[in-house]
Amino acid sequence: MSSSASSVRLRPPGEHRVLGVLGGMGPLATARFYEAVVRATPADHDQLHIPTVIWSDPRIPDRTAAILGGGPSPVPAMVEGARRLEAMGAEILAMPCNTAHAFLPAVRAATGTTWVDMIGATLDRIARTGAERVGILGTRGTRAAGLYDAAAAPRGLDVFYPSDTDQSLLIDDAIGHVKSGRRLLRAERLVAAAAARLHAAGADVLIAACTELPLVLGAASRVVPVVDSLDCLASACVREVATAVV
Amino acid sequence: MSSSASSVRLRPPGEHRVLGVLGGMGPLATARFYEAVVRATPADHDQLHIPTVIWSDPRIPDRTAAILGGGPSPVPAMVEGARRLEAMGAEILAMPCNTAHAFLPAVRAATGTTWVDMIGATLDRIARTGAERVGILGTRGTRAAGLYDAAAAPRGLDVFYPSDTDQSLLIDDAIGHVKSGRRLLRAERLVAAAAARLHAAGADVLIAACTELPLVLGAASRVVPVVDSLDCLASACVREVATAVV
Repeated sequence: MSSSASSVRLRPPGEHRVLGVLGGMGPLATARFYEAVVRATPADHDQLHIPTVIWSDPRIPDRTAAILGGGPSPVPAMVEGARRLEAMGAEILAMPCNTAHAFLPAVRAATGTTWVDMIGATLDRIARTGAERVGILGTRGTRAAGLYDAAAAPRGLDVFYPSDTDQSLLIDDAIGHVKSGRRLLRAERLVAAAAARLHAAGADVLIAACTELPLVLGAASRVVPVVDSLDCLASACVREVATAVV
Repeated sequence: MSSSASSVRLRPPGEHRVLGVLGGMGPLATARFYEAVVRATPADHDQLHIPTVIWSDPRIPDRTAAILGGGPSPVPAMVEGARRLEAMGAEILAMPCNTAHAFLPAVRAATGTTWVDMIGATLDRIARTGAERVGILGTRGTRAAGLYDAAAAPRGLDVFYPSDTDQSLLIDDAIGHVKSGRRLLRAERLVAAAAARLHAAGADVLIAACTELPLVLGAASRVVPVVDSLDCLASACVREVATAVV
């Protein structure tokens, strides 16, 4: 199929396609993602916003545990959620969870709908800024699955991570604090310490590659620019639902 | 049916019923409502949160216009949304929009699921504080439908509203600014001016009875306590989904 066979135009205002969100990984990130979609939508009254269906299922098994070999696969629950969203009329699907993208190929194969890829959307935005060396703040699962590594190379980007010790003592602990809703100031200090080390190691920019982290990025973003993967996914979804291929 | 035939217990952690949210009225309020549900849920990891399905349909016709006689009924679109939520497995339903509650009796009659009523949840919280005179900051539609008036009397509360001029020049304009996402500082000043008038007229407490208003309540809440109907609905939903009638 040649790309010259189709072209892209903006759909008329109020005729967006329906966005489906496979959420609950975690729940707060899902709420923040939907708010980011609303804020990224050019609309001055309700009726121009994007019809959206959200299936937020916090019972989906832990993604990092599954990648590291210690837990059940989240794929069956993710596929069931995606099919529910399709049954509700979703025409474009997205998952506001970086680690879950390790399972996107399996979920995509079981569904018939277009997915917007959070990893690609985030790296595309960074590639446009001219940055080259990218530090990743994310879960152990996102790192072990090599999600950003695989997608960075074709975009001419070099990605790297905190040391094993920093990952464990700074990032994993900070994510745990956010998920529990407690000790957020401590979490912010931990993330800032990790950001300073990555900046010293040569990072031009960091990716908040876990959707729990943006809540505690304030101090880190005063050390080095931080791109929020949740915002990148939201903007990419708004572009996608507003676009018709004709 | 005697109420003594049943009693109430808390369901085990992780066995909440599924919450369904009929949203999009407006979209930003829907995002904020879901965040309020997450924050009101006692949970220290993802799997203890409430499974939630959200149908956020900003194409639902304007509720205030329908109440005032100038627009199409939102009921068909609301019923269709509620049925989609039921088909997704929702066991408890809620609408984070005060004005939409004018149509709750019609929507409830067309659905088979328990609804949590935002108006009742908000007045219940106020009645527990001992306040008696309640000023209402809401849309012209909420006011014309008499939603708070009807529910206040049996709770021993006296509700009243801004003057027609204040409603038009302060509240209606402020809500319009929030819906457009522009001039939020001006909206905050308009709401504070209306709050000061209601306080001077004897209000012990105000209700933010439009889900767009909490974004611009900062200055008003320094004049007189303001109860956010969105938070009251969120807390009531968390209690309801965690409760089993046995």
